[in-house]
Amino acid sequence: MRTAYHEELESITDSLVDMAHLVGSAIGRATTALLDADLQLAESVIAADEKVDDLQRDLENRAIALLARQQPVATDLRIVVTSLRMSADLERSGDLAQHVAKLARRRYPERAVPRDLRRTILEMGQLAQRLMAQAAEVLITHDVEAALQLEQDDDRMDELHRLIFQHLLDDQWHHGVETAVDTTLAGRYYERFADHAVSVARHVVYLATGEHADELTTDSPATV
Amino acid sequence: MRTAYHEELESITDSLVDMAHLVGSAIGRATTALLDADLQLAESVIAADEKVDDLQRDLENRAIALLARQQPVATDLRIVVTSLRMSADLERSGDLAQHVAKLARRRYPERAVPRDLRRTILEMGQLAQRLMAQAAEVLITHDVEAALQLEQDDDRMDELHRLIFQHLLDDQWHHGVETAVDTTLAGRYYERFADHAVSVARHVVYLATGEHADELTTDSPATV
Repeated sequence: MRTAYHEELESITDSLVDMAHLVGSAIGRATTALLDADLQLAESVIAADEKVDDLQRDLENRAIALLARQQPVATDLRIVVTSLRMSADLERSGDLAQHVAKLARRRYPERAVPRDLRRTILEMGQLAQRLMAQAAEVLITHDVEAALQLEQDDDRMDELHRLIFQHLLDDQWHHGVETAVDTTLAGRYYERFADHAVSVARHVVYLATGEHADELTTDSPATV
Repeated sequence: MRTAYHEELESITDSLVDMAHLVGSAIGRATTALLDADLQLAESVIAADEKVDDLQRDLENRAIALLARQQPVATDLRIVVTSLRMSADLERSGDLAQHVAKLARRRYPERAVPRDLRRTILEMGQLAQRLMAQAAEVLITHDVEAALQLEQDDDRMDELHRLIFQHLLDDQWHHGVETAVDTTLAGRYYERFADHAVSVARHVVYLATGEHADELTTDSPATV
């Protein structure tokens, strides 16, 4: 009985990892679609989000069934409850990747991103994908150091987001209002995507230590 | 024993209602701060969000303690798990109200909203506050009709959001890029805030009927 139970618990983590892989791939492909004005790729990202939503709903049902049948306590209970939170983060990340793809689609055949911001958006897209890959790894390893590292790596995302604003508010901006709107939204989507990856990592820290990640990091010299 | 247990369950719902009231008030005050460029009001909204975060953390701890001690099943289990999801929605709504207030603060003493968009932003702010008040009510009454109504009322928010984009992308736009950026973000914040109110209502539908709200609404003529 306990064995089947632990298999169920593990299968919930497996689903979270699958979701993280799917949304990591989605943000990477959405970024390519955005930069290359690739409509077909954008459409495929938009369509693929359904799979993430299905995984989330399925995970939620399994988690609730497990709570009802097995009534886990202590660490196991924490794993199940936290999984519900993490699955919500991942589902939302999938939506954000889809939003990036929709920006590409809306401006097609034009490109939504002006030439002088391509490098920044590319870096944001790659960083978002990398952060989600790290989150997936942390879900498997429960490595607290690596989880806290994610938070620091996210600082670069905030820098890039600020850089976008500097660009937008510069008097030299000559790409017009429509592109300003798209760029504002894209910046926001990437920043939120990264926040969700960090949130997953924080939940893992909580699982591994019983402490919330902010409590840990305020004491740590690593945050300075 | 069971009485204390049901009191605990009820106190979780009470906290959700408190959170909904707080964030509803926050979005209302943030909108005033934004429209009037009222720095003091903006600061008070920004500071007040801590209270919402505290409520959420407290609710989460109580829910987990209740799961561990009482091991609820069936409807009670669903109430606890769903409360965790709803508290996340409400916490996030608080962040969004705070973001609106931060827009006001960033542009102070200037106004972030141009004159010809004041009415639209005012309507978005009022609608957001009203949707959250409805969500709070639905949390108390578990009235499925009222919960589904929220979804329809949210259609107006989507209309207003589209109206903002039309304005932004109009050739007549002469408020510059900074205001375009602020307006884009404000529109997005209100729309997301309303989504979270709708999400709370959907969770209530699930609690009351065991069905997810989209399954109910696709069969209902009310969605046409």
